[in-house]
Amino acid sequence: MGGSVEAVTVGAENGFSKKRALSPVAAEELPEEIPFDSLKTVLPALVGEAKEDVVVEQTKNFVLGKNVHGTCLEITEPGLDDEETGDRDAYMAGILSRYRKTLVEKTKYHLGYPYNLDFDYGALSQLQHFSINNLGDPFIESNYGVHSRQFEVGVLDWFARLWEIEKEDYWGYITNCGTEGNLHGILVGREVFPDGILYASKDSHYSVFKAARMYRMESVKIDTLLSGEIDCADFERKLSERKDKPAILNVNIGTTVKGAVDDLDLVLKTLEKVGYTEDRFYIHVDGALFGLMMPFVKKAPKVTFKKAIGSVSVSGHKFVGCPMPCGIQITRMRHINCLSQNVEYLASRDATIMGSRNGHAPLFLWYTLNRKGYRGFQKEVQRCLRNAHYLKERLREANIGVLLNELSSTVVFERPLDEAFILKWQLACQGKIAHAIVMPSVTVEKLDDFVEELIAVRKRAFPDGNVVVPCIVEEVGPENCACSVHRDTVSSPKDE
Amino acid sequence: MGGSVEAVTVGAENGFSKKRALSPVAAEELPEEIPFDSLKTVLPALVGEAKEDVVVEQTKNFVLGKNVHGTCLEITEPGLDDEETGDRDAYMAGILSRYRKTLVEKTKYHLGYPYNLDFDYGALSQLQHFSINNLGDPFIESNYGVHSRQFEVGVLDWFARLWEIEKEDYWGYITNCGTEGNLHGILVGREVFPDGILYASKDSHYSVFKAARMYRMESVKIDTLLSGEIDCADFERKLSERKDKPAILNVNIGTTVKGAVDDLDLVLKTLEKVGYTEDRFYIHVDGALFGLMMPFVKKAPKVTFKKAIGSVSVSGHKFVGCPMPCGIQITRMRHINCLSQNVEYLASRDATIMGSRNGHAPLFLWYTLNRKGYRGFQKEVQRCLRNAHYLKERLREANIGVLLNELSSTVVFERPLDEAFILKWQLACQGKIAHAIVMPSVTVEKLDDFVEELIAVRKRAFPDGNVVVPCIVEEVGPENCACSVHRDTVSSPKDE
Repeated sequence: MGGSVEAVTVGAENGFSKKRALSPVAAEELPEEIPFDSLKTVLPALVGEAKEDVVVEQTKNFVLGKNVHGTCLEITEPGLDDEETGDRDAYMAGILSRYRKTLVEKTKYHLGYPYNLDFDYGALSQLQHFSINNLGDPFIESNYGVHSRQFEVGVLDWFARLWEIEKEDYWGYITNCGTEGNLHGILVGREVFPDGILYASKDSHYSVFKAARMYRMESVKIDTLLSGEIDCADFERKLSERKDKPAILNVNIGTTVKGAVDDLDLVLKTLEKVGYTEDRFYIHVDGALFGLMMPFVKKAPKVTFKKAIGSVSVSGHKFVGCPMPCGIQITRMRHINCLSQNVEYLASRDATIMGSRNGHAPLFLWYTLNRKGYRGFQKEVQRCLRNAHYLKERLREANIGVLLNELSSTVVFERPLDEAFILKWQLACQGKIAHAIVMPSVTVEKLDDFVEELIAVRKRAFPDGNVVVPCIVEEVGPENCACSVHRDTVSSPKDE
Repeated sequence: MGGSVEAVTVGAENGFSKKRALSPVAAEELPEEIPFDSLKTVLPALVGEAKEDVVVEQTKNFVLGKNVHGTCLEITEPGLDDEETGDRDAYMAGILSRYRKTLVEKTKYHLGYPYNLDFDYGALSQLQHFSINNLGDPFIESNYGVHSRQFEVGVLDWFARLWEIEKEDYWGYITNCGTEGNLHGILVGREVFPDGILYASKDSHYSVFKAARMYRMESVKIDTLLSGEIDCADFERKLSERKDKPAILNVNIGTTVKGAVDDLDLVLKTLEKVGYTEDRFYIHVDGALFGLMMPFVKKAPKVTFKKAIGSVSVSGHKFVGCPMPCGIQITRMRHINCLSQNVEYLASRDATIMGSRNGHAPLFLWYTLNRKGYRGFQKEVQRCLRNAHYLKERLREANIGVLLNELSSTVVFERPLDEAFILKWQLACQGKIAHAIVMPSVTVEKLDDFVEELIAVRKRAFPDGNVVVPCIVEEVGPENCACSVHRDTVSSPKDE
């Protein structure tokens, strides 16, 4: 193997089409200490001055779910003279620069995911090269000094105020993502009620049911209304059949697909109606995206610890905007105390899911919250809701079926037929629908471009020019479907 | 509340001693839309030109585990004229600059945690401001375009080669930290053997037993030898008593406290001896720190998928060095396939624990692996082991009890009596011992400084000058303990 000639195709996709020829490494070039044979096969050195540029095309059969192997940026062994020639640095700089270009491009056309891409963290770049790790509990200093707990707790306090819980009554931490928040909230629920049954609507994020399986909990899926909200009639039915067991609930403040907000007050009423007192249920609120937006919408039902909820989680990289995924998890101190009494592993006093935690995320959040403040967020929320409404109207005018929940900036519409268009705008699709999420980084100009392009590709899909509007009545309801059957029930913009 | 005067102590610790006076916000200054009363209480605006600088000292009673609240950097609401005055920016720049200084300081004296702080990612700073998220499976592209899968898979392939498993036979991903790797490996084990019992040595990382509890698995703690390795005699005994159930094992390549390497071959032999065939056990290898170092040590037992192991995880921020925690998880494709057949939630085809994943971590890893290569890592491993040996000898000369496992760069020694010294050098302690981990960023000069300072503070702890050496025979064994009873059994450096 050590003597064969190998070639590596460097990322054929994403603008990386450069191929690099690799020369064999003579066995005697390797330092003696290399301990195992296979190492030789992975040591094709980069050629600085090689004459024989033999490029062999890599052909591979991709098994399902392995399609990235073909476009991946293989790591190659540096040549012995790389430091002198500077070739390696130049090669890597080239890759990174091209990657940067694709990121710029991809960031520009981005509409399907709830990430606010509008941020400027230049002031934090001086901190990027520190290995900041908030090991374990945010409230207990570890001996590792390179942490950012003082920022983390500042951020947690801000959210505690937002959700109305006193400093001494809450515990929380900055998670790696929204999923970790759900995993944590549901775990706390299970520790409080070991034989509790998990109830969640079928539109809940998949991590909720993943948690149930991981934790070996019984779980019950509840139907949803057309809007995507939990159907409390179905909840009542299913809860009544299982009255002997405590209930652990996941309540969505903004579902993934339709951006629907479960009616927390109605959920609480249903529990009461079936005969559940506070000592027999635990509610985890999955605030994902809207958990941060709702408090700034006048009419929205309030997420607050003054109600009988156990935990709230929200994503940090969504509405706030952050270069990496992160989230905020807040729960009641008494639940964590109860957890730590039971659990031997908490000798470490670590009630987080992950032990090591990214210490940069708190810095980003702290920075943005401090700069924008409650007032700044309120303005942004208002603009997003206004722009979402604008998008809905534009789509409706173009005779495209569209659903926008009142408290939401997630605009659901017929799935475009053109896959390239979907990829370009990075639309998240499910069955016959797609959605665009109007975040602070989405301007009216961008929405105009999007709608015009959508109309154009839609027309092109029908060579005779007669667009056949698909029926999505099951997904959005008759008043929102624009197909020939339901068209007439769609209220024209002027009627509103 | 809106009319009261509040003051905020901005981080009294860590060099942040500045106090800022906050003036009341008149209720009429608030925009109408603010939806809830409590908002007013959290809107103390920063004063640009306030005359009445009333500073009220915050006094708080800290409950246990809440000590960070006192030093946290509270987030305050920006004043209405902040953008004009620039005061807020100046204020935040001041905090960040001071924070940077403490990071520099803390990074300088850092010896107790296995983080390589020696890296230069300047070339990647151009990518810091993108919201890079590798949603779900690394091998399946999602519609979200701002990802780094091509780098991630490159990194995974590198580790697959290191641990000798073919591209088509493995599945893996870059995790948020070592704990996520353990959580994943043990979950896969449980899915393969739903009624399997988890066996792990008592020196295993606490996340292993945390996983057992989370997943509701039966778990059995195995004794360790003095070195910290798993005691296979005890394992055999306990396994024999539970022969009717499949076995899920956690094998440590470098324990947290003593850096001990479990003897994988002996573990496999023990399984065979008790009558376990490959279809009745699953081994997860927790490579934490040494999983990346071992392959570069000639004498080390080999971690390879050619042996009957199911998964390996390793931390990315430890030996490689990375500004945020991350890890690599590799498992056999057939286990993941088995998982995805069983699991409804994998309709999303997401076999990771976290859904959203930090897309920057793969860039850092890809960059370092490409720059250093196998050869570079080998050199660094050799230097670390050499320096660890040097530290051991210096401590021994100073009559300090010390243990260094052969394949390890974790130097265990008597816990210093001086808490300030422990904090300064960020030593991790357990009972009567502390450890220093010699990483690539630790130079001989730093070790010299450390030893000299340790000798000095040790002397100072005994006003009469007669140092009483503590007995740590139970932790390090008679040949390593330097107390008056065991001193004579310590071999002098010359004997070796």
